[in-house]
This record gives sequence, C-alpha cells and structure tokens, in this order.
Amino acid sequence: MNNFVFYSPTEFVFGKDTEKQVGALALKYGARRVMIVYGGGSAVRSGLLDRVKQALREAGLTFCEMGGVQPNPIDTKVYEGIDLCRREEVDMLLAVGGGSVIDTAKAIAAGVPYEGDFWDFYLGKAQVTKALKVAVVLTIPAAGSEGSGNTVITKVDGLQKLSLRAPMYLRPVFSIMNPELTYTLPPFQTACGVCDMMVHIFERYFTNTSDVEISDRMCEGVLTAIVKEAYRIRQNPQNYGARANLMWAGMVAHNGTCGVGCEEDWASHFLEHEVSALYNVAHGAGLAVIVPAWMTFMAENHPQKVAQLAARLFEVPVQEDLHEMALACVSRLKHFFRYMGLPVSFKELGIENPDIPLLVRKLHENKGPLVGNYVKLTPKDSEEIYQLAL
Amino acid sequence: MNNFVFYSPTEFVFGKDTEKQVGALALKYGARRVMIVYGGGSAVRSGLLDRVKQALREAGLTFCEMGGVQPNPIDTKVYEGIDLCRREEVDMLLAVGGGSVIDTAKAIAAGVPYEGDFWDFYLGKAQVTKALKVAVVLTIPAAGSEGSGNTVITKVDGLQKLSLRAPMYLRPVFSIMNPELTYTLPPFQTACGVCDMMVHIFERYFTNTSDVEISDRMCEGVLTAIVKEAYRIRQNPQNYGARANLMWAGMVAHNGTCGVGCEEDWASHFLEHEVSALYNVAHGAGLAVIVPAWMTFMAENHPQKVAQLAARLFEVPVQEDLHEMALACVSRLKHFFRYMGLPVSFKELGIENPDIPLLVRKLHENKGPLVGNYVKLTPKDSEEIYQLAL
Repeated sequence: MNNFVFYSPTEFVFGKDTEKQVGALALKYGARRVMIVYGGGSAVRSGLLDRVKQALREAGLTFCEMGGVQPNPIDTKVYEGIDLCRREEVDMLLAVGGGSVIDTAKAIAAGVPYEGDFWDFYLGKAQVTKALKVAVVLTIPAAGSEGSGNTVITKVDGLQKLSLRAPMYLRPVFSIMNPELTYTLPPFQTACGVCDMMVHIFERYFTNTSDVEISDRMCEGVLTAIVKEAYRIRQNPQNYGARANLMWAGMVAHNGTCGVGCEEDWASHFLEHEVSALYNVAHGAGLAVIVPAWMTFMAENHPQKVAQLAARLFEVPVQEDLHEMALACVSRLKHFFRYMGLPVSFKELGIENPDIPLLVRKLHENKGPLVGNYVKLTPKDSEEIYQLAL
Repeated sequence: MNNFVFYSPTEFVFGKDTEKQVGALALKYGARRVMIVYGGGSAVRSGLLDRVKQALREAGLTFCEMGGVQPNPIDTKVYEGIDLCRREEVDMLLAVGGGSVIDTAKAIAAGVPYEGDFWDFYLGKAQVTKALKVAVVLTIPAAGSEGSGNTVITKVDGLQKLSLRAPMYLRPVFSIMNPELTYTLPPFQTACGVCDMMVHIFERYFTNTSDVEISDRMCEGVLTAIVKEAYRIRQNPQNYGARANLMWAGMVAHNGTCGVGCEEDWASHFLEHEVSALYNVAHGAGLAVIVPAWMTFMAENHPQKVAQLAARLFEVPVQEDLHEMALACVSRLKHFFRYMGLPVSFKELGIENPDIPLLVRKLHENKGPLVGNYVKLTPKDSEEIYQLAL
C-alpha cells in the first residue's frame, strides 16, 4: 500500500426533502451572496430551482444566477460566470445539477480570485491557491463531483478536454443529495451515470500496487451494489431505495473512499475524453464503449485484476486461465451495459468511422507518450484499444 | 435507507514516516500552543514522543504535555488535562496514542472552554458548542477515534462508562497514521483492536433498515479485509501491508463510511461497557465475549442479518434455516477470535462469576429500559445474553 492522504471534508446531507436545508447550510458555511449555477430547463421545470431560491430567501441570503450549462461543459460558460461573480461580488457558488454544472461552478470558483486566465490551472501553468466556496444540490448521480476536488472543462477553441485536481480548495463545503430528485432522469442518462461511477472505481481498482485488500474489497462492494441497484432502477425508476443506494455509490466512487493507497489508472477516462471532445457524445456512453475495449486489451496483456473482478463482481468461476476469466468479465460487463441501454461500440455510439489517428494523436499530445499505469499505453496500444471499440 | 449526514472532515495522512509531518500539519491547522497527551511508556520508549516533539519544535511550535492516560480512560485525568490546558493557554490537543488517549484529549478539548463540569456533556445535561482543536498521531488501530467525533470516558466515582457524540466539534482536524508504529503492539492488544473495529461495523450492519445495499456491501468488504489481514499479522506482526490495511480498516469502521442510512444498534458496546467498567478488562476482549453471546441470542430471535453475514463473510452455504446459518456465524466468529488469542466467555476473560444482576441493573439504569435497535433488549434479554456469555 502506498502512502496517501484522504481528505473529504464536505458535509453530505442525504435524503428526502434535504434541499429545503440549502439556506441554513449556506449560512452555516458563511455565504452572504450566492450565485446559483444550473444547466438546462429540468431544474426549472421540476420546480427545484424555485424551492432552492425560496430556501435561500428564507435564510436571508441574496443571489444571482447563471443557467445554460451544457453536458461536456465549456470554457466560455466559465468566463461568463467569472465575470458575473466579480460584478455581483459573489462569495459562494451553488451548483444545482450534475457533474457539468458542478465542474463549471468549481472552475468559476477558482477563476474569480485569479488574475490570469482560469485555463492556466487546467494546463498546469498555475496552481489553485484560493477559491470561492462551492456548494451543491445534486440532481444526477454520475460524476461524483459533489464529493471530489476535481473538475473537467472543455476548451471550445482547440477541443481540449482537460481535468484539474485541487482538493484543498475545490471540494464542495456541503452537498445536498435527495434521491427523489433523480426519479425523472431519462433512463439513458441514468445509465450513463451508472457507467461513469463504475469506471471511477475501475480506474482505482486496476492497479499494480500490492497489499490493497481494503481498497479492493470496498471497490468490489460498491460495484456490486451499483449493478444490483441499476437493475432495480431499470425496472422501476421511482424505486427510492435503489435511487438512494445509487446516488451514494456515485459519491463514494470518486471522493477517495475507494482506491486508498493505490496507484490509480485514468487511461479509460483519458481515452474517452478525446472521444467526447471530438464527437460531443455523453461521457458515460463514451466510457461504455471504451472500457470493454480497454479490458479486452488487458485480458491479453495484464489480466490479473480483470480476472479478480470477474470472480468477485460477476461470480465468474475461478480458473487457472486468467485470460479466459478476464474475457468473461468483458462479456458480462457488455451484457450489463446493453441491458442498461448503453452502446458498447463506436458504431452503437453513432460514430461509424471514428478518426482514430486523430484521437490517438490528441490523447498523447494532451497526456504524454505513455498513458495510464496498470499498463502504460503507447500510441500503438491506444490505437489498438480504439480499434477494439469499433 | 434513512436520511443521514456524512461528515468526516479530518485530513488523514497515512503511511510510512508520516509522523514527521506533525509540525507542519499543526501549523496548517492554526496551532500555536500544543498539549501532547499520551498514555503509558511505549510512546516514550519507542522514541515516537521525541520525534513528535522534534517535529513540533522544527515548526516553531511550543508545547506542554500530559502522560499517564490508562486504558478505559477516566474522568480524573480529564480534569487534570483541563486545568493544565487553561494554565498553559493551549489551543490544540495532540493525542499520541490509541482510543483512550484520543478520547481523553477530546474530553479535555470540550471541557476547556466550558464553564461547568465536562461530565455534563456525557450525561446529556449540556451540548458541546465549542472545543479546542484535536489532532492525532495514532499508535493503536482499534477504537476508530482518530476519525470519529465520539469519546468514551469512565467516571471513577460510581463506575459510569459513558459516551459522547459531538461530530461537529470533536472530529480531529488531522490524523497521522503510520502503520509501522503498530509493529510492536503485543498480539493480545492487536487482537483486541481487531475485535473492536469489527464490532464497530457490526453495530451498523445489524439493522432493520431496508434498502441499505451500499452499506451492507461496504461493511462486508471491510470485515473481509480485517479478517484476512488479522490472520496475516498473527503470522508476522511486521507485515507492513497487513498492518496498513488493518489500520485503515479501523478508521473506516467508525467514521461513518459504513452504516450510511442505517438505524444503528449499539447494544453490544453498551453490554460490554458495563463489563469493562466493573471489571476493568480490555474493551476489545470484553466485546469478544459479549458479541458471540449477542449473536447467539439473535440466532434465536432475529437471525436474518446474522445469516447474511455468515454467507458473505464466512462463506457459510446459504440454506433455508437461517437459525442454523446464524449459529454457524457464531461458531466461525468464535473460532477466529480464539485464533487471535481472544477470550470468548466470561470464564476465559478471567471472570468466573460475573455479577449479572448488577451488570443488567447498571446497563438499564444508564441506557434505559430498552437497549439496542436490531432487537430492543429488555432487562430479561440482557440477562440472557450475559448468561450466554458465561
């Protein structure tokens, strides 16, 4: 087990009607002037936004707002938010939405007190040393951004999709998580969320670090719960218990609970980021295409942990041929993704002829000559994985 | 799943040599004048205390100290600490030790800014609304106090052993966890810690709350890791990987990671607190006696979750007769405890004729007419469990 720091200071307020506490919580964490950030119209149509505003008013807080954040959130919206926050002298960003909204709020929070271009942080040219407070009312369990210090933004000009980690500054101070708010998510969006949170665990689970039993067992436990609850939600989208378990799973998949002491491997995410940057597909759907391909490559090249997952998550019988076990894992995973309505190939994703040379070139331009850790992928390896996803 | 709040703001700095960071971390969390709290001589003999002092000095911090905290920590030591802190104008308590030392530091932290008697908090007569900061260098993985907002203190006069929960004020600001510091723990103390952390999980796992799949799976995963690593430590006490996994397991067993959304059941702990208050036995050893008896009672009265644990932790074959499965769980658990060198009866604990009427009377005086939740124990039930432990 490697040395590590676990730091998850967010106060998670979980359950029915918890959005009513947003005003009291914002006050408790020192807000005076709030900016609400949200996405499309669903938060408006469902009445959630009104309930949030009402709760803020009742707590004596004033606020401004910025809607219109899109999936695969973009830099131009961040610049708009930074300007608005400075003009309105905001001291807390309240993200009402899913990962795209929260990631946009985090980028704004880091950008407001910074004199340069916020994109410097994503390029690694500058370090976050100060940020406005970020808080969350979560509506989509997927990205885990409600409990992480990470954010992913796409630069429209140049189609760069890059991530930033600044856990000491960008972890939300509180996150309100009411599973009922997820009842009306379209099945496809629920499925994309399921895939995203599973892959957040995979990226930690697929490690060469030895002696990580506690991490392995927690990863496997959370994955087992996700698969079970995803089936139940597919059968009944308004199953509170299933929605609740899934919502919490999405958080623990990404706040550091899983993967303690492991060298992580973010290759699948990076392979996918190039796909969604170029073709603007849903991140979770892109992952459902990439991950089985990545695992198939690993079945050939480094099957150990894929075989272990096969046995412990999918109850594949243990046998000597780890390659066979790993392939069985791929097969079960694809079956599950298909049941959830997810694509498992570029073709099913609607991309008949992906520009694989371009994807490979952008990937290694953005992430260096070797990508990932479980197996360090060369451009040739990345190409093979994209090919396996056709 | 019930509504819940998860709040674990402690910064956990985990791994080899991490105690060297104590000065920098104390500074980061705003300390100026520190009081080091420790127990017997092992922190002195091992040189740990000197290394901690050196790191504080290098960070430019001054400190005073109070040693001599005993297992089953007592109120008189808390009063001594409160006086010393006030006199020395301390603003951070640094606990170097295990649960007893940390719990004493927390009691002092709450007591210093309070005008009344600190025991008021434990009696429920007053609420903690302010406390000095608490930080930890952990040497015994067991109590989980390094990540919890709880403390347990025994009042010498009257032999009352009571607990206090004040998560908003008493969670350590940071906890340093170096598994190498646990190499020299005597096997019996390691075993007591293993039992204590397992029971912290049991008290959350044995719940009637439905739809708690994510909690169940995480509890089972952590328990599986604990049992595996405990065997490895028994074989080689200096196995770093095993010590590391166990140390982290002790934290997640009690910081709220396990048991989210569950109605908890602390009957086993309360049954045991009376035993260690009266006979001054090690808490973990007392639990090893009480818990199999509690489970045997449940095999008869409410076997469901005991049977589930049998299947998932001990691989007991699933069968219709849950009572049989639950008894198999008791049998495997006792076998494991015995392997670890723990007693599993009052007799083995060295108490030939426990005063069961007194234990029952004190338990229900302290905790009310019904104790626990999975089954609410009447005095007659408590008596039966104590009898089953003979």
